[in-house]
Amino acid sequence: MNRYRMIIAYDGTHYSGWQIQPNAPSIQQTLERALSKIAGHPLRIHGSGRTDAGVHALGQCAHVDLKIDISSEGLLRALNNHLPREIRIMEIQKVSQTFHAQYSAIGKIYHYHIWDQRYVSPFDRLYRQHIPYQLDRSLILEGCSYFIGTHDFKSFANIGSGVKSTIRTLSRLDLVPQEGGFRLEFEGNGFLYKMVRNIVGTLIEVGRKKILLSEIPLLFEAKDRRAAGPSIGPQGLFLVQVHYSSAVKEGTYSKGAENSLKRASLC
Amino acid sequence: MNRYRMIIAYDGTHYSGWQIQPNAPSIQQTLERALSKIAGHPLRIHGSGRTDAGVHALGQCAHVDLKIDISSEGLLRALNNHLPREIRIMEIQKVSQTFHAQYSAIGKIYHYHIWDQRYVSPFDRLYRQHIPYQLDRSLILEGCSYFIGTHDFKSFANIGSGVKSTIRTLSRLDLVPQEGGFRLEFEGNGFLYKMVRNIVGTLIEVGRKKILLSEIPLLFEAKDRRAAGPSIGPQGLFLVQVHYSSAVKEGTYSKGAENSLKRASLC
Repeated sequence: MNRYRMIIAYDGTHYSGWQIQPNAPSIQQTLERALSKIAGHPLRIHGSGRTDAGVHALGQCAHVDLKIDISSEGLLRALNNHLPREIRIMEIQKVSQTFHAQYSAIGKIYHYHIWDQRYVSPFDRLYRQHIPYQLDRSLILEGCSYFIGTHDFKSFANIGSGVKSTIRTLSRLDLVPQEGGFRLEFEGNGFLYKMVRNIVGTLIEVGRKKILLSEIPLLFEAKDRRAAGPSIGPQGLFLVQVHYSSAVKEGTYSKGAENSLKRASLC
Repeated sequence: MNRYRMIIAYDGTHYSGWQIQPNAPSIQQTLERALSKIAGHPLRIHGSGRTDAGVHALGQCAHVDLKIDISSEGLLRALNNHLPREIRIMEIQKVSQTFHAQYSAIGKIYHYHIWDQRYVSPFDRLYRQHIPYQLDRSLILEGCSYFIGTHDFKSFANIGSGVKSTIRTLSRLDLVPQEGGFRLEFEGNGFLYKMVRNIVGTLIEVGRKKILLSEIPLLFEAKDRRAAGPSIGPQGLFLVQVHYSSAVKEGTYSKGAENSLKRASLC
């Protein structure tokens, strides 16, 4: 068996999300079909984690075991030829059997894009969440600081992931202005189900002055999803990069591959 | 009758172009249907010119006469509510009957976007022309200079527009680098049918060294479409701005409207 690690960009607009679903096309299924045509045997691809319906990726990471011994370069070319243009493989490397896209991951970067003008440009309509009024960005930026660090994010997690602990560490949460609005950049060691979209929904309420800054600690203390702000749509969300420990990387990647990972994750 | 001038952005991917066609949805028809629902009478909208199937616009300009006396603000809101999200009205102003979107126009700006990396990002696939190898940009930039000025562009025009003269003036043709490739910015007093796409197709051949710089004057001299390079696909082309004379503008627009026009045309 040969294990390959790949970095994948996808436009999630017309997909049911990463994971295989009955009666709806998923990113995982589309990739598995293309890969098994090339490899000539059934197979399973393992992603770093799920993305929901309509969520996009610039740097999703996955691995797969193939019985054939094809070069990374040959696999990259063949796979992109078999895939719809909504899904592009940006990089492929052969890795050792110790690498696992989900269990070896130690962190992720997500970006959430908001368009806060009255009308959203036709070219941004599928890739930005439209809020048709201007938000108070300085309040949102101040609100971000309440989420940075290690917290119990139970109030910001939807039920359904079956995790034991809801404690996670957000190392960075920034507001970056961009054309038509801004994006929120999340970096952390792990994310609970719908955590990014629930935090963004809460921060939007902060920007609308529906939730006060002084109330944010109470939302954490409640440890109840109903206490925090509403969730927000999927189309503004991008999985930008998945981090792996340097031990895993030193064992399996060349420096070039690591640089490629960085490049693929540029927004 | 009240005449309204509007600036329109549209994603042309799923449309047959600006002009009404049998058996295919066009931008013009979609706008006329929405406008006639609001006005309660049949009407005709006049654009600054056609755009072909798949071509996009950031600042198309059009005018329409309505029997109702609705405020520009009210019409803007109602029209965007009736239109699909692929088409957005960015600005509306009431203008005098002397204004005509096509006949008053004195110039236009088009941008043509090229992605010259091996794989095109899923998020750019509908808005960039993909050339899967690196082009010689310095040759293309030098090639641009041959097109600037007043020339007979007959070799770069497709038959079908029925114009008397094929002499036009290009006041600007620039290569601007951007993520994944570059764009070519055209500014001129008028454009013949498929002229931008035919010039871009020729410049791509220059960047591939299939046409030499010294051959470009011969292409002009031939005055034959078959002499120049091939045309290129529509999805990289954006109508960015339509210019009107200051006499027309002074007679019909406020300074604010003119600034809005500039804003709407930003890429």
